[in-house]
Amino acid sequence: MKVSEIAHLADGEIQGDGEREIRGVAGMETAAEQDLAFADSEAALRSAPESRAGCILVPEGTVLAGCTTIAVRNVRLAFIRAAEVLHPIRPAKPGIHPTAQIAPDAQLGTGVTAGANVVIESGASVGEGTQLGAGVFLGEGVTLGSRCVLYPRVSIYPGVQVGDRVVLHAGVVLGADGFGYLFAEGHHHKFPQLGGLVIENDVEIGANSTVDRGSLGTTHIGEGTKIDNLVQVAHNVRIGRHSVIAAQTGISGSAVIGDYVTIAGQVGVADHVRIEDEAVIGAQAGIPTGKAVRKGSVMWGTPARPLSEFKKMYAHLSRLPELAQKIKELSAKLPQTKE
Amino acid sequence: MKVSEIAHLADGEIQGDGEREIRGVAGMETAAEQDLAFADSEAALRSAPESRAGCILVPEGTVLAGCTTIAVRNVRLAFIRAAEVLHPIRPAKPGIHPTAQIAPDAQLGTGVTAGANVVIESGASVGEGTQLGAGVFLGEGVTLGSRCVLYPRVSIYPGVQVGDRVVLHAGVVLGADGFGYLFAEGHHHKFPQLGGLVIENDVEIGANSTVDRGSLGTTHIGEGTKIDNLVQVAHNVRIGRHSVIAAQTGISGSAVIGDYVTIAGQVGVADHVRIEDEAVIGAQAGIPTGKAVRKGSVMWGTPARPLSEFKKMYAHLSRLPELAQKIKELSAKLPQTKE
Amino acid sequence: MKVSEIAHLADGEIQGDGEREIRGVAGMETAAEQDLAFADSEAALRSAPESRAGCILVPEGTVLAGCTTIAVRNVRLAFIRAAEVLHPIRPAKPGIHPTAQIAPDAQLGTGVTAGANVVIESGASVGEGTQLGAGVFLGEGVTLGSRCVLYPRVSIYPGVQVGDRVVLHAGVVLGADGFGYLFAEGHHHKFPQLGGLVIENDVEIGANSTVDRGSLGTTHIGEGTKIDNLVQVAHNVRIGRHSVIAAQTGISGSAVIGDYVTIAGQVGVADHVRIEDEAVIGAQAGIPTGKAVRKGSVMWGTPARPLSEFKKMYAHLSRLPELAQKIKELSAKLPQTKE
Repeated sequence: MKVSEIAHLADGEIQGDGEREIRGVAGMETAAEQDLAFADSEAALRSAPESRAGCILVPEGTVLAGCTTIAVRNVRLAFIRAAEVLHPIRPAKPGIHPTAQIAPDAQLGTGVTAGANVVIESGASVGEGTQLGAGVFLGEGVTLGSRCVLYPRVSIYPGVQVGDRVVLHAGVVLGADGFGYLFAEGHHHKFPQLGGLVIENDVEIGANSTVDRGSLGTTHIGEGTKIDNLVQVAHNVRIGRHSVIAAQTGISGSAVIGDYVTIAGQVGVADHVRIEDEAVIGAQAGIPTGKAVRKGSVMWGTPARPLSEFKKMYAHLSRLPELAQKIKELSAKLPQTKE
Repeated sequence: MKVSEIAHLADGEIQGDGEREIRGVAGMETAAEQDLAFADSEAALRSAPESRAGCILVPEGTVLAGCTTIAVRNVRLAFIRAAEVLHPIRPAKPGIHPTAQIAPDAQLGTGVTAGANVVIESGASVGEGTQLGAGVFLGEGVTLGSRCVLYPRVSIYPGVQVGDRVVLHAGVVLGADGFGYLFAEGHHHKFPQLGGLVIENDVEIGANSTVDRGSLGTTHIGEGTKIDNLVQVAHNVRIGRHSVIAAQTGISGSAVIGDYVTIAGQVGVADHVRIEDEAVIGAQAGIPTGKAVRKGSVMWGTPARPLSEFKKMYAHLSRLPELAQKIKELSAKLPQTKE
Repeated sequence: MKVSEIAHLADGEIQGDGEREIRGVAGMETAAEQDLAFADSEAALRSAPESRAGCILVPEGTVLAGCTTIAVRNVRLAFIRAAEVLHPIRPAKPGIHPTAQIAPDAQLGTGVTAGANVVIESGASVGEGTQLGAGVFLGEGVTLGSRCVLYPRVSIYPGVQVGDRVVLHAGVVLGADGFGYLFAEGHHHKFPQLGGLVIENDVEIGANSTVDRGSLGTTHIGEGTKIDNLVQVAHNVRIGRHSVIAAQTGISGSAVIGDYVTIAGQVGVADHVRIEDEAVIGAQAGIPTGKAVRKGSVMWGTPARPLSEFKKMYAHLSRLPELAQKIKELSAKLPQTKE
């Protein structure tokens, strides 16, 4: 791919050698002469002239003397798009591996691939072009959309519905029973876990994460939402569209999370919490049972409070020893104080 | 199943049409005419008349005009029992899948089912009626009781002993090595991890949870204890009977947890902690090394303290800026104070 | 093995019967007459005479009347070494299971074993004596060193490089995509996740842990580092040599962790954090984005601060109600204070 072709793709302006051949993308420090790199911070732009990259994507209006650059409006977006062309997803080996066990009544779209030891149970359906890694398990009646990628050892319980272009990393478990018991007569009775699980289009879920089915209702993950590794999503949770949930976060039963929400790592969201659109939850925060987080608010700490309040409280917390000392001094000034 | 049959099963009293046919259970909002629902809160009872449910379980003494109801002592328990009859666990495909690899000396009870790619190593034994999902791995000498359900990809290391009616969700790992090293001569030497792991009857363990074997002693999970997804139980831990441990909690080495204990999500229990019977640990709490939590106490925060104390401290914490301000004012009133 | 042989191995001094036959190791409480136990604390030494152990390892200079003992410089190290001899790692069944699917161009060293349903993709190579448990998946071009042990269901994405004597427990996922997105035009665009993952010699990783590949650079885990269960290591992270990371800890993108670092359980390390050599991070601590933790420092809490500071602050925190009360009293002494 020539620099000029990338510039055309990215709607950008070339400085330097448009005929240069580019073979891949790389970070600026490690890029070689046939790599495309990017620089969108001041620090990166300063160090750019030392890079061996064949071409550097830069913000509009930037000139880097001696470098071949393409100036674009959104540097990282242009980089992502070039990477998609230069490093297309490696197509899986075509066809169905002879060791795959596929129920006679399962429906497979055209171009579906299945690795070794894949198991597809009765009544399941898989959309066209979807790739199933080695050892993937699809339970009875599971429906997968088209052009999904399931990495090895993904396990999907019966009846789960998954949209198009969904990416599930290795070890993901979808549709296991929710964790609901009634304590009576000296032991725990399992509450029915008969509900569904719906994953909409363009969702990605990280390695070894777990999403439970609903108890009576449905667990739901909206379009374009991205979930990191080792995340737990409990029964009856509803997550909106285009939200982002970082690693090791846990969302408890019946929590409702809006659109464009950002949840950092190791956050705990208790049951029946409601997080409205565009809210941001800081790492390790804990949202107590039933709490509502308003639209666009930024929450921190356990129990979580607005970031500005958290910061103020935290500053005072650091000054506690000093405050205690001052109280002692004040007491000393008042000799009549009984202590 | 007729309403009258459910009433008989639940030892309840019918109001309305006892001849009505019921096919399943559902939540009140989504129930259809052949569904059984339940209402045990005031809010639910108020909205019950709008439900399309064919029959509603209600507390004794409740009358819902125009609805067919069954009045019972324990609404949810009756609902659970009806659900067990109306939605029996789907029996697994009978028999052993031809791709299952079963050691010649493994012992399988009558009615054991094994899905595709199950592996059972030498000396293992599986009790009658136990169901092994696709890709389950049982190491050498593992013993499983009767009527267990193991979902796909459960992995059990050699020698682990599992009781009857145990449910293990997809991706569970039982009996991996504990995390114990001795640092000497500039690197970590692995302490022997030769102990056992015993899981008693009626335990349920959620997807992708891990329970390590003992180092020299035995890790032990008592009868009826329920464990959620992504929980870690370390070596030599002893958990009592009928305790409940929510998602992403971690129990460190040699901790001892009693009977009827409730541990919420993302709790950290450090090594050699002792939690006595009926204690309750709030979400994200941290119990420091060696600490004892007394019988029936309720603990919150990190490091955990009794809930009442935590609440008081937390209230003062919120008032810190105000306290600091007051100290400033007091100082100003005492002009002789050097600052 | 005779007591005298163990003494020779451990360079220790026998008291008692050097001819006694020892068959295994055990804890002092459960040891039988043919077991080797150890006692290195005062409490253990006091209770040692009641043990039925055939031989007890004790610190140099210790005499236990009536017991057969071996006095050594480092009791636990001697115990570990004896255990290695008395309980050698059970060799896997030799050879390649007939159900294993191995690409024709994959390279297997001598003595490699592969359990049922192992999958090795094109271009992968496995060093001599490495053991692959049932259902292990090695993607295209993966390289594994010699004498590694991979337990069942380990999944390794394409191109990951693993050194010698590495132990990976069941369910580990290596080399999944990092979690990086650019939000633009109303949805999340996936940043390229094309980098590598290098695991050096003698690393051990616990069950169901996940280590992501680099985005453009490389994720790196140094020699001898030990990682517990359910740990998350994100893209581009660099972990040094001989560090220890306990269960459920999460290390965010581009964090750098030095040598001989100790990280307790459920710690959260945010992105671009730098933890220098020999630092110690307490359980559940949170290290905020970009923070540097100095060499050898001990950090506690969220956001983490030096342990001494944390303890002081925490002590004052516990006294908050008392401080508030005192302020109230002081205010009362100054009647002219407007409130």
